[in-house]
Amino acid sequence: MFTGLSAFPLTPLHHDTVHEESFTRLVDRLAAADVDSITALGSTGSYAYLTCEERHRVAQLAVAHAAGTPVFVGIGALRTSHVLTNAANAEKAGASGLLLAPMTYQPLTPDDVFELFRTVTTHSSLPVIVYDNPGTTHFMFAPELYGRIAELPGIASIKIPAVPADPEQAQARVRSIRAVIPDHVSIGVSGDASAAAGLAAACDTWYSVIGGTLPVLARTITRAAQEGRMSDAATEAHRLAPLWDLFTEFGGSIRVVAAIAEHLGLAPSASLPLPIQGLTESQRHRVAEVIDELGLDQ
Amino acid sequence: MFTGLSAFPLTPLHHDTVHEESFTRLVDRLAAADVDSITALGSTGSYAYLTCEERHRVAQLAVAHAAGTPVFVGIGALRTSHVLTNAANAEKAGASGLLLAPMTYQPLTPDDVFELFRTVTTHSSLPVIVYDNPGTTHFMFAPELYGRIAELPGIASIKIPAVPADPEQAQARVRSIRAVIPDHVSIGVSGDASAAAGLAAACDTWYSVIGGTLPVLARTITRAAQEGRMSDAATEAHRLAPLWDLFTEFGGSIRVVAAIAEHLGLAPSASLPLPIQGLTESQRHRVAEVIDELGLDQ
Repeated sequence: MFTGLSAFPLTPLHHDTVHEESFTRLVDRLAAADVDSITALGSTGSYAYLTCEERHRVAQLAVAHAAGTPVFVGIGALRTSHVLTNAANAEKAGASGLLLAPMTYQPLTPDDVFELFRTVTTHSSLPVIVYDNPGTTHFMFAPELYGRIAELPGIASIKIPAVPADPEQAQARVRSIRAVIPDHVSIGVSGDASAAAGLAAACDTWYSVIGGTLPVLARTITRAAQEGRMSDAATEAHRLAPLWDLFTEFGGSIRVVAAIAEHLGLAPSASLPLPIQGLTESQRHRVAEVIDELGLDQ
Repeated sequence: MFTGLSAFPLTPLHHDTVHEESFTRLVDRLAAADVDSITALGSTGSYAYLTCEERHRVAQLAVAHAAGTPVFVGIGALRTSHVLTNAANAEKAGASGLLLAPMTYQPLTPDDVFELFRTVTTHSSLPVIVYDNPGTTHFMFAPELYGRIAELPGIASIKIPAVPADPEQAQARVRSIRAVIPDHVSIGVSGDASAAAGLAAACDTWYSVIGGTLPVLARTITRAAQEGRMSDAATEAHRLAPLWDLFTEFGGSIRVVAAIAEHLGLAPSASLPLPIQGLTESQRHRVAEVIDELGLDQ
């Protein structure tokens, strides 16, 4: 279940309230595009900004609209007790798995993070994806910690940051992780620009931001890689370079993907949680140009 | 009001619940020690881990036990609407000022942060302290942004990170900030180890972590500096070097200060919010030794 394409939808807001109509439409699109799983409330799904109650409701909506596609739910929070509340609510909502990043305000030690995962896997019967996202959590997983956590019963997958562009370096990175974790734990790449490289380097999964808004594009790359057509995957990923360049230039994927969703009418305007203002008008024009030039509207 | 010693008490937890008895006892100690202000719910007060409701209650308790000492309240949150809720609750509780750090999950732009402060100063009548704490927020204030924000009506002070140990470099740092902000906005130093250096370099305020638990010590240094006895302040700060060294060695002040409070019976054991486990037994022994050797029990 923790392989192939996992698509991460936005959770659009409108006037500081979750916009359920556009969220459920995004989930409907993902189910229709035959993605392998849907991860609601990932970083792009603004989990860190929403209350436990909002997150419970979003999890329910995701499962209700997934049409049988497995739904994973982000449960991260700064306080362990809130993580456990989110885990229990995700389970009640019918989630198939949990995504957990070690959010930080005070920096955490490796032992703090190990205990967090131990506590969650002890309290929940759902499989857990370890979410390594140093760009938002500022926590750096050492390979040794991957190994300790992956040995816990209930750990199903590790979502790793972007792999190096160089194929040999990418393979070495993935091999070094594979060497310290059990075989049944899958490795999934994030960082959309490096997804084709990650899949070619034997990642089992693409945890995809762009796949949450443009699932057909992400499915094309994933299926090519799964069928061993690595050069097809690389060619398509290369074609999308202008899009990945915008992710870098505009300070990360969430602002660009929200602008894409707003441009395509999939989210209301100003759909990110304040204080994140999203892109400026001129930046939005650049995004729209790239989307239109690349023919990315599905 | 935003000058002298502002003491930052812990908000001790016990079994994941705010331990009101020890919190109010800490506040009583601060009022009795004649600190110039009390900042509840700073970073050391675990504001980032508590719900809006818990924070409202802590603000009420702080004001009720401050015996007339001005109370500032930390209102930071990841989402602007939650910041506004915290600001309104702090005002209802009788706070005299607000402390606001730009918490991040997704990295924020300077414009995002400016708008956050603009929104809060528009909605609240209380004076606001700009809280620059890159070690927890990972947001870097440029001097230009200090200037833009400090011009907003309602901004009263800027809490800056530790200044350089070298006196000339410390003076240059404070002068460079003073040059871009209005005269009525005070500059306060944090980073307890550099407090004497900061006060000698013309900082108006010491926003003090250690002062929240050991107020007499912090008051001694502050009063010496205020009376122009800079070498007395420096001598006392230098005497405490073994304490500052523990802050560095054990990964920041909150774990050490919580261990001190627990050692002195001022907080229940395991008083930090999980997943922060606090110091190990052997680390706690080291802290206790230093506290006892330095005679720091008040």
